[in-house]
Amino acid sequence: MTSLAMIEAAAARLAGQARRTPLLSSPFLDEIAGRRLLVKAECLQHTGSFKFRGGWAAVSALDPVLRARGVVAYSSGNHAQGVAAAARAHRAPAVIVMPADAPRLKIDNTRALGAEVVLYDRAAGESREAAAAPLVAERGLTLIKPYDEPEVIAGQGTTGLEIAEQTAALGITQAEVLVCCGGGGLTSGVALALEDRAPQMRVRPVEPEGFDDVTRSLISGQIETNPAPTGSLCDAILTPSPGEITWPILTRLCGSGIVITDAEAQHAMALAFQRLKIVIEPGGAAALAAALFHPDRIEGDTVIAIATGGNVDAAVFAESLTRFA
Amino acid sequence: MTSLAMIEAAAARLAGQARRTPLLSSPFLDEIAGRRLLVKAECLQHTGSFKFRGGWAAVSALDPVLRARGVVAYSSGNHAQGVAAAARAHRAPAVIVMPADAPRLKIDNTRALGAEVVLYDRAAGESREAAAAPLVAERGLTLIKPYDEPEVIAGQGTTGLEIAEQTAALGITQAEVLVCCGGGGLTSGVALALEDRAPQMRVRPVEPEGFDDVTRSLISGQIETNPAPTGSLCDAILTPSPGEITWPILTRLCGSGIVITDAEAQHAMALAFQRLKIVIEPGGAAALAAALFHPDRIEGDTVIAIATGGNVDAAVFAESLTRFA
Repeated sequence: MTSLAMIEAAAARLAGQARRTPLLSSPFLDEIAGRRLLVKAECLQHTGSFKFRGGWAAVSALDPVLRARGVVAYSSGNHAQGVAAAARAHRAPAVIVMPADAPRLKIDNTRALGAEVVLYDRAAGESREAAAAPLVAERGLTLIKPYDEPEVIAGQGTTGLEIAEQTAALGITQAEVLVCCGGGGLTSGVALALEDRAPQMRVRPVEPEGFDDVTRSLISGQIETNPAPTGSLCDAILTPSPGEITWPILTRLCGSGIVITDAEAQHAMALAFQRLKIVIEPGGAAALAAALFHPDRIEGDTVIAIATGGNVDAAVFAESLTRFA
Repeated sequence: MTSLAMIEAAAARLAGQARRTPLLSSPFLDEIAGRRLLVKAECLQHTGSFKFRGGWAAVSALDPVLRARGVVAYSSGNHAQGVAAAARAHRAPAVIVMPADAPRLKIDNTRALGAEVVLYDRAAGESREAAAAPLVAERGLTLIKPYDEPEVIAGQGTTGLEIAEQTAALGITQAEVLVCCGGGGLTSGVALALEDRAPQMRVRPVEPEGFDDVTRSLISGQIETNPAPTGSLCDAILTPSPGEITWPILTRLCGSGIVITDAEAQHAMALAFQRLKIVIEPGGAAALAAALFHPDRIEGDTVIAIATGGNVDAAVFAESLTRFA
């Protein structure tokens, strides 16, 4: 189980490796949100998403003998790039299992980062776990799960340590912290960090319509599952259900979930382009969309939205601008 | 004349007001550039460009009685927003003289920041100086020039102090520093700061084709003028000639200029979107374009490009992605 001490240890290993991403703001966005809005720009992280933190934390925590054999990860893309970049920096081989329908840019980037890519067909019902299993059994690779892995959660939790430090410097101690939520690795890591460092802040998971497994789980009190594996633009956060390790943390620490539409995510992408000058992918814009378009679901004078990633195909981004900018 | 002491004083007044913008990088861009490439992301500055620094430095340096009467500035947009935001924070009225053909976003933003906007027609030969003069004479406003103003140069120079500190933290002391150059306010301010703080770095002005007045002036040894006032996508840096105050600094401290095309600027915008997840406007992409597409004009293992601003209309940005991403 991930502890604050593990998050602090991950932060020490990440020092000088991960970027300390800025908290951005704009008076124009404050006006739309109806309160002070701060955006933690993890799209500016190495490999274009917060996943670099978890990848580095997990790879750097491995026994050197195991690490030299290599690692395997499955991912729609951002975890893949994070693990690939961390493995390359540690001179460890990396194999990444990716859905064949992941954005082209994510597949290309993963290969360019030196990883071997194995594709599987999620629309045909193939599972990523089944694709990864023989790689572990036959090649002795260590599996680094995208969220249900204590060291990965610890790495993502370093985002929460930074939020606590950066807001304290601004004199802010109370806020709701909106997190784009797939399996809950970032959400649970940030919640653990803030529990200790900013106990008056509350984490709120944000999910796209039709993929609101965490929101429904928090209501029912047990793990709920999404009906379909695909069907939202927010590809980075389309996981079937909260994780076995992340769920107990989510249910203990998080406020209720917020659900946004794909159109709201695209509108948030356009506003982030216009007002913050950052590039966010649809799944990375979910929290910002909640802050901007669901203000009635949020309490208090200050809201913090984590912009989790920016790995979006140019055509999708251009279309969001055409529709909403 | 701007001195290092003035830049340091401006930095003290800007502390907690301007953002300390990150130095970004990507292995993909290093490969294109053929060397280590660091991008100082001033597009993430308040109001979307470095101009906030100069605006704040100048407004905060004014005598309070003069400041209360108000300020006037002429600008294609970024200086306008910088001065407007700084004036509003100081509760001073601001009037901004803008060309009628400036990007819509810049005009709208300037008004939304509380400034009164006066438009003039640069294609018809009207001059911004002529438009601003009666505002100074009749309303007692203080003119804040966009670059030929010692306190503005000092404010822009704080970018150079940050570059020196951020590169020193990375163990870098030698580099060429590429600056998108209009009238030379940022270029001269950064050169002054680096002369003292990183004397082994050399500033190189970068300009668009047809607007290479500084490049030609550095060759001829005297102030040269551009033949036309408009005609490049890089609207932010289309000034007729180096300034009277900036020119002596530029000729004393800068290496030779580099000239880029509009297409190269757009290609750099697309690569910054893809690899750095930042939004840059055409004029703000000139230095990055030089680093990526004119590597033979650059010396050494490390190049730093200042991405000066991100205030670009959505249609222009989307077109750059369609052509080059």
